[in-house]
Amino acid sequence: MKEKEWSNSVGRPSNKAQRRAEIVNALQSVIARVGYEGASIQAISKEAGIASGLVHYHFQNKQEILVELVHSLTETSVTRYEELKKNASNAQEKIEAFIDAALALGDGSNEQAVAAWVVIGAESIRQEEVRELYKFTIARQLEELRNLLQNYAHEKKKNLSANSIEHISTMVISAIEGAYQLAATASKITPRNYAATTLKGMVFSVLDK
Amino acid sequence: MKEKEWSNSVGRPSNKAQRRAEIVNALQSVIARVGYEGASIQAISKEAGIASGLVHYHFQNKQEILVELVHSLTETSVTRYEELKKNASNAQEKIEAFIDAALALGDGSNEQAVAAWVVIGAESIRQEEVRELYKFTIARQLEELRNLLQNYAHEKKKNLSANSIEHISTMVISAIEGAYQLAATASKITPRNYAATTLKGMVFSVLDK
Repeated sequence: MKEKEWSNSVGRPSNKAQRRAEIVNALQSVIARVGYEGASIQAISKEAGIASGLVHYHFQNKQEILVELVHSLTETSVTRYEELKKNASNAQEKIEAFIDAALALGDGSNEQAVAAWVVIGAESIRQEEVRELYKFTIARQLEELRNLLQNYAHEKKKNLSANSIEHISTMVISAIEGAYQLAATASKITPRNYAATTLKGMVFSVLDK
Repeated sequence: MKEKEWSNSVGRPSNKAQRRAEIVNALQSVIARVGYEGASIQAISKEAGIASGLVHYHFQNKQEILVELVHSLTETSVTRYEELKKNASNAQEKIEAFIDAALALGDGSNEQAVAAWVVIGAESIRQEEVRELYKFTIARQLEELRNLLQNYAHEKKKNLSANSIEHISTMVISAIEGAYQLAATASKITPRNYAATTLKGMVFSVLDK
């Protein structure tokens, strides 16, 4: 890489952010294919089409890239939910937006992101920093979902104990995480686009029981 | 290890099976702690408290141990289900037995087995042989569950399309896989023993809707 290109690519803030995003994206592709341990800095830089020195310039180590990937996946998911929620006028539609944002994996879905998230979930068994981030994401989702279910009960004038709300919210998050697992490894033996519709059906059935 | 001990420990078939089981069990402990790639033959033999040569005597490589672990976890789960099913007198109780066998993770549950299964799920993204085994297990569960739901519909004289049965079965398996994920990484922020009861509640609500 020529001196001029180097200074260009790391000099301006916008370029810097873009370069970091490219590296994070490259990590996502690589771990979706070979797992986290197999994702060497060399493999990441090759995937990004840049020199490995540039990866080292932007990130101290592989874990730092992984942490940014977790943030980026979470942010994408939150943004998608916020977008869908804009058109929701009541609690039921907001719950639907929440589930659709997570599971409407048909068009516009990102297989690599789903596979990467499954790898991150397993990696969080092993790495405390990843686990803390993973738990933070789950905790935030649980809180949002608990609020939505509470509003739903209020709007529909239903009695739902705090316990029920907590249990149903947790099971919805479980179902979402498990649907990612099946999408990443067993999509050939599962029905197409079953997830969001079926989960919504189960949630509203139990809420309206 | 002395010559005599060696021949003792690998000579008789019952000893051989037991030794293999110990090695498989050691792999389970190690991957639950450090993941699959981190599980070196050395770490496995240390965990099992045996010489690494003995691991090599019983298994060609690490993947062969992993394959046996997948079989062993599947078998344990099937046996638990068969046991619970014995006391079930109708389709509803059999569905409950299925979910309890998978998710009644309170007493007698095996945290290491759950964590190992999550690691295996993620590993099956990367390794085709593991993926085929994982898919085979999921396919068998899906088939059993489809049959149970069909029998339930028949017994309760309900109209359930083949599509609905397939979608609900798949979502139940997703929920089970995801509950393992949360149990392995986020158990501190999820309610105790929510999984089996909540999933049964959701399934029968949607079936009886």
